Amino acid sequence: MENSQYNACPQLAVEARWIIPVTPDGVVHEYATLIVDEGRIRDLLPSAEARQRYQPLETVCLPHHVLIPGLINAHTHAAMNLMRGIAEDRSAITWLREHIWPMEQQMVSEHFVRDGTLLACAEMLKGGVTCFNDMYFFPQAAAEAVLQSGMRASLGMVVLDFPTPYAANADDYLNKGFAARDELRDHERITTCLAPHSPYSVSDKVLAKILTYADQLNVNIHLHLHETMDEITHSETQFGVRPCMRLNELGLIGPNLLAANCTHMTAIEIDIFAKQGAHVVHCPGSDLKLGNGIAPVACMKEAGVNIALGTDGAASNNRLDMFSEMRLAALLAKSAGNAAALSARQVLEMATINGARALGMDDNIGSLEPGKWADLVAVDFSAIEMQPCYDPVSHLVYVAGREQVTHAWVAGESCYERGLHTHINTDELKEIAAQWQGRLKQFHP
Amino acid sequence: MENSQYNACPQLAVEARWIIPVTPDGVVHEYATLIVDEGRIRDLLPSAEARQRYQPLETVCLPHHVLIPGLINAHTHAAMNLMRGIAEDRSAITWLREHIWPMEQQMVSEHFVRDGTLLACAEMLKGGVTCFNDMYFFPQAAAEAVLQSGMRASLGMVVLDFPTPYAANADDYLNKGFAARDELRDHERITTCLAPHSPYSVSDKVLAKILTYADQLNVNIHLHLHETMDEITHSETQFGVRPCMRLNELGLIGPNLLAANCTHMTAIEIDIFAKQGAHVVHCPGSDLKLGNGIAPVACMKEAGVNIALGTDGAASNNRLDMFSEMRLAALLAKSAGNAAALSARQVLEMATINGARALGMDDNIGSLEPGKWADLVAVDFSAIEMQPCYDPVSHLVYVAGREQVTHAWVAGESCYERGLHTHINTDELKEIAAQWQGRLKQFHP
Repeated sequence: MENSQYNACPQLAVEARWIIPVTPDGVVHEYATLIVDEGRIRDLLPSAEARQRYQPLETVCLPHHVLIPGLINAHTHAAMNLMRGIAEDRSAITWLREHIWPMEQQMVSEHFVRDGTLLACAEMLKGGVTCFNDMYFFPQAAAEAVLQSGMRASLGMVVLDFPTPYAANADDYLNKGFAARDELRDHERITTCLAPHSPYSVSDKVLAKILTYADQLNVNIHLHLHETMDEITHSETQFGVRPCMRLNELGLIGPNLLAANCTHMTAIEIDIFAKQGAHVVHCPGSDLKLGNGIAPVACMKEAGVNIALGTDGAASNNRLDMFSEMRLAALLAKSAGNAAALSARQVLEMATINGARALGMDDNIGSLEPGKWADLVAVDFSAIEMQPCYDPVSHLVYVAGREQVTHAWVAGESCYERGLHTHINTDELKEIAAQWQGRLKQFHP
Repeated sequence: MENSQYNACPQLAVEARWIIPVTPDGVVHEYATLIVDEGRIRDLLPSAEARQRYQPLETVCLPHHVLIPGLINAHTHAAMNLMRGIAEDRSAITWLREHIWPMEQQMVSEHFVRDGTLLACAEMLKGGVTCFNDMYFFPQAAAEAVLQSGMRASLGMVVLDFPTPYAANADDYLNKGFAARDELRDHERITTCLAPHSPYSVSDKVLAKILTYADQLNVNIHLHLHETMDEITHSETQFGVRPCMRLNELGLIGPNLLAANCTHMTAIEIDIFAKQGAHVVHCPGSDLKLGNGIAPVACMKEAGVNIALGTDGAASNNRLDMFSEMRLAALLAKSAGNAAALSARQVLEMATINGARALGMDDNIGSLEPGKWADLVAVDFSAIEMQPCYDPVSHLVYVAGREQVTHAWVAGESCYERGLHTHINTDELKEIAAQWQGRLKQFHP
């Protein structure tokens, strides 16, 4: 086959009423077609022109839909889906120390992680999430679920100073993490990063070691930071400084750091993040639910910090729903009184290209540009509760819900289509979730 | 037919996995049946017992569902559904004075109100709302839509000091309101109340007159109060007091007052509301979106104020989605740092029985108790994104979305069932909405 002929017959064409590529900024294409070949975006052009120029093997017509980049959930603990709603209306510290950690000590296993992560993947794909940044135990088990689902993920090599059913001590966590990294290195859809849980659960010595490894291996560091005021006052007592300053003294605040939550940040700390190119993952739903407060997103944005968006785990959210988080982020940023503090367009960037930047994957995902992976999501705007529509971008954030997602593709492969998961048997998965529920319900207070 | 035999053959039985009656407080029935006869709830009992005792004409089996009282949207402007998302990310004052009011001056008509309200009814029923408290022009036109849809509504006799296409001056508004009230008095599903828009748009003289009418006719007064700081500072300049104190001096703060928003309330003002039995309608989504701030719900609850929940209009929300509002209310109340500030159970009460109390309808709706109207909503918990479920009440608030609503009944009549509206042709309604969009889009900035 000649090259020119081959080029004219790509794998897939997606014709949509609107395509929002996210970058370039502010552009909305109407009646446009995205051409996918070998898993990557080849072209994005007016549908009339696309029909002339290409003869794709498959064409998907989306006459009432918006096509967007797959959403990137930049902070979650996927396997915790099995603990969805098990300890409600409790503060972060009580929730973690009195409920979650004791439960994990008894229940967490490879099976738990594989099943819980698959449940999370099913939920996320159905809600338009194609990539997530995970922090949990047994990353190989999580990887099994990710690979089965068809999703893309960054899996944390988690590190704690205390033992769990996964590992005995910091070195054991690191060794197990590196073993997982080696085992997973050939999978295109999986990356790994170092994931020291938080400044309060990992010592200076271990954090320094992690920084060395991160530099040597050129991987990201993913941790929780300033999630609660308690964490900050505890650090002031123990170390004489706030956790952010402690991390800064250790040299951890840099372009490969993803700090989740950042609910409490001073102007100086925001400035350090901005100057040193560190990334924040805003988790508005979980931070409200655990009584942590509201992150100063408008100030961080103003300072130039790259802000991604995450759901956190289902045990504290209780949905892995990036549509809810987008809407909540846009609304909460206005709580200080400025209705223009964070626009729909900006919050969509947080959920897509900013997440890709935080993960160091913005050359490959996060927007619909030729050359990037075809990680795509279609959102149907035809429901009665969505009429009328004056602006598809604001509609996506303020009106749409995840239930309007009809399709999700990862690298051009369909993973979810009109209610059906391509690679997950959800009936079987419901049975498995019910079995875990039977074992976990003893922990429901 | 003998009475005992008649009693044993009621119109409808709804068998559900869980029934949450809301009152008595904290009760959840599992595998229970609700018996409906002549539009009212006759019985609520274990399903096994119900099958022995009753031979209903129709039985609806809901094996994975929660049955709850129909949600009550206690503050909205239904017809504004046609303006959904037309002026985004603007402060309340700019949004109202520079966008909404000028648009209304040119576009509002009986047709506009009938079509917009029907669109809102379709949205609300699909999302589990069976009753709403409306404030808009042309109440007879709104009533046409409500009656067609099968819903229940309290329609405002709106009053403003300035002219609109609906009325020329305060007396004209009142006369038109009373004419509507007379015309609608025989409809079981419609009530009316006096609806002076706000302290800043209605003079003392007119407010005093409204109070007299409200007392004479024994109707509620529905208004906006302390929605913005601007409204408060303006009142301090013009009247020397905050709007709440002005209303109090005029004698308006009492058990027939429903004040929407109440975003900014001092301890003294909260105390006045509590002591005098006035009702607050919390509208968290709209108040955030317009940059108004966060109402002190935890303080108002602590003081004993009855707090209902509302979506406000689709032009500032942009969803008439009581599931979103429940979740948002529960989360926002925790923003000050107390994760137990407002529980899932309490927020469900706000969306049901508290709304009924605010409307003076708690003898008839707001909970599933024998003798009340059978205003019922079924929510399906079987979706993969809802697994597992440890507590159906917290699941309803933190996990469920309106897309999980499968059935809505009003007075025992089915109005919505598995994607289909009983009395609304949604395909036709979409066409009508598209026509209005064509006329309104000139106002989209």
